[in-house]
Amino acid sequence: MLLTTLYIIGITAEAMTGALAAGKRHMDWFGVMLVASATAIGGGTVRDVLLGHYPLGWVANPQYLVITCLAGLLTTVIAKWVIRFHKIFIILDAIGLIVFSIIGCRVAMDMGLPAIICIVSAVVTGVFGGLLRDLITRRQPMVLHKELYASIALLAGVMYYGMMYFAVPELITTIATLVVGFTARMAAVQLRWRLPVFVLEEPKEDKLLETRN
Amino acid sequence: MLLTTLYIIGITAEAMTGALAAGKRHMDWFGVMLVASATAIGGGTVRDVLLGHYPLGWVANPQYLVITCLAGLLTTVIAKWVIRFHKIFIILDAIGLIVFSIIGCRVAMDMGLPAIICIVSAVVTGVFGGLLRDLITRRQPMVLHKELYASIALLAGVMYYGMMYFAVPELITTIATLVVGFTARMAAVQLRWRLPVFVLEEPKEDKLLETRN
Amino acid sequence: MLLTTLYIIGITAEAMTGALAAGKRHMDWFGVMLVASATAIGGGTVRDVLLGHYPLGWVANPQYLVITCLAGLLTTVIAKWVIRFHKIFIILDAIGLIVFSIIGCRVAMDMGLPAIICIVSAVVTGVFGGLLRDLITRRQPMVLHKELYASIALLAGVMYYGMMYFAVPELITTIATLVVGFTARMAAVQLRWRLPVFVLEEPKEDKLLETRN
Repeated sequence: MLLTTLYIIGITAEAMTGALAAGKRHMDWFGVMLVASATAIGGGTVRDVLLGHYPLGWVANPQYLVITCLAGLLTTVIAKWVIRFHKIFIILDAIGLIVFSIIGCRVAMDMGLPAIICIVSAVVTGVFGGLLRDLITRRQPMVLHKELYASIALLAGVMYYGMMYFAVPELITTIATLVVGFTARMAAVQLRWRLPVFVLEEPKEDKLLETRN
Repeated sequence: MLLTTLYIIGITAEAMTGALAAGKRHMDWFGVMLVASATAIGGGTVRDVLLGHYPLGWVANPQYLVITCLAGLLTTVIAKWVIRFHKIFIILDAIGLIVFSIIGCRVAMDMGLPAIICIVSAVVTGVFGGLLRDLITRRQPMVLHKELYASIALLAGVMYYGMMYFAVPELITTIATLVVGFTARMAAVQLRWRLPVFVLEEPKEDKLLETRN
Repeated sequence: MLLTTLYIIGITAEAMTGALAAGKRHMDWFGVMLVASATAIGGGTVRDVLLGHYPLGWVANPQYLVITCLAGLLTTVIAKWVIRFHKIFIILDAIGLIVFSIIGCRVAMDMGLPAIICIVSAVVTGVFGGLLRDLITRRQPMVLHKELYASIALLAGVMYYGMMYFAVPELITTIATLVVGFTARMAAVQLRWRLPVFVLEEPKEDKLLETRN
């Protein structure tokens, strides 16, 4: 119940970031709905396809798809306000990230998959929506460059899996993961924590990659 | 029978648009076949993967894959004629779009899925081939910018689903959807109908998206 | 046993090419792991999703995913050496290509799929990892432009399928395919064999593609 409410908040916030990215690319209403939906429910979709977990969430519950399409269209109207109040937005988005990660972890656990896959499932669910958004709108995939987005999903996945493994009651596990994950995400945004970046100079290795293909 | 014939016309026309896009990117024969096939049968493939509808159409009927590869290679030889007679081409492509949408709707209906998903299935089948083509050849995804491509798929899906729901015989439903969808598509091309576009200025919201990632 | 050993060599080499591509895009450690894994196990993943062959290889054997992530991270440390000894690398990569193709062909054969699909499965397994790498790191998909990468996968698939069809013992088939495929790949790299390229001039057909969308 708690998770469902937070999930709806999360997909709404994610859909809005998708719609903004579509607006930067001057897409039409259909493009806005597509990018909004891909951003919001793309992570869960990729996860379910990779795990063979059918039917997909939004196929079984089409109302989620309706929410993301409407949130996308709404964003075209209220874009100015969305941008102005972007601090609220960062909070909603952080909630969404943790909720997605928890749900991703749970789906894999319910399928009886090994620990590593449960945590990968958390990361995929948390991150692939943003990755799809950036691929479709042809942006540098920011998920792979910027603040600790994927790492927070990893943290949430490990924490949730670990507490469930040690038989902590589910409600406590969920709330604890939400609080810790949310705090870590906010700290990462505020303090601009980043993972080390791997920078490779162009000229030399070009040859290797070219020959390889 | 009618649908199968029109489907083969449709995938041939779509494969040719894919091959032209590959030629613009100076791809080799293999790239031409890949982009041609992704354009022609990519929409149905994405739909089947999302719905868990196995085996995929071209896995069960590999001859469709042979057709798209041959159509792609043929295009490298007759590209000049394809471009010269592009009006015939637009007609074949419009037929393909409606047929894809009808088939997409039917597949979801046969699986007993809810109305919204049947219509989404029609749109995905109609649109994702062109979207994949544009992603692989790194073009601005035109499906999301230009004339009412996705909207026509939506119209065809709604009409087909609605008439079947009200127990109109299948042949009549199919022909009526083909006629209305085809006419709407031709009108959209001729009259340059478009969906409203969502344009967002760069500077301000950049900050939001960056912080979010 | 032989195949498993060669497979591990192959995914390690592929993961390293993925990590180098990520480094060119200044990705962080997480991006490096993602691109490395997508390059190394993306081909098998796409194949399994297309064929409905669940669970995916790396879901059933998460250690492969651990290998690709570690190989990716290791590459950030030893990038200079990787680039210096790139001839060894090309050899490992060629082994990987043939092994991937053989495994792809076998998976489809074990599912009782038709000959064409078995060979397509070989090509998809061999090629899609590199294609995903280039899509995520926003490079021109080199698989579709450069030396006979996909064609070698095709050759390996046809040869493996053909020899198994004529009941040649599996070990002999595997070794023969490895030797022939590896030799062909090395020859293609050395002699710069290429498939003909389809080049289409920009101005004229633009109109067609625009109208079509």
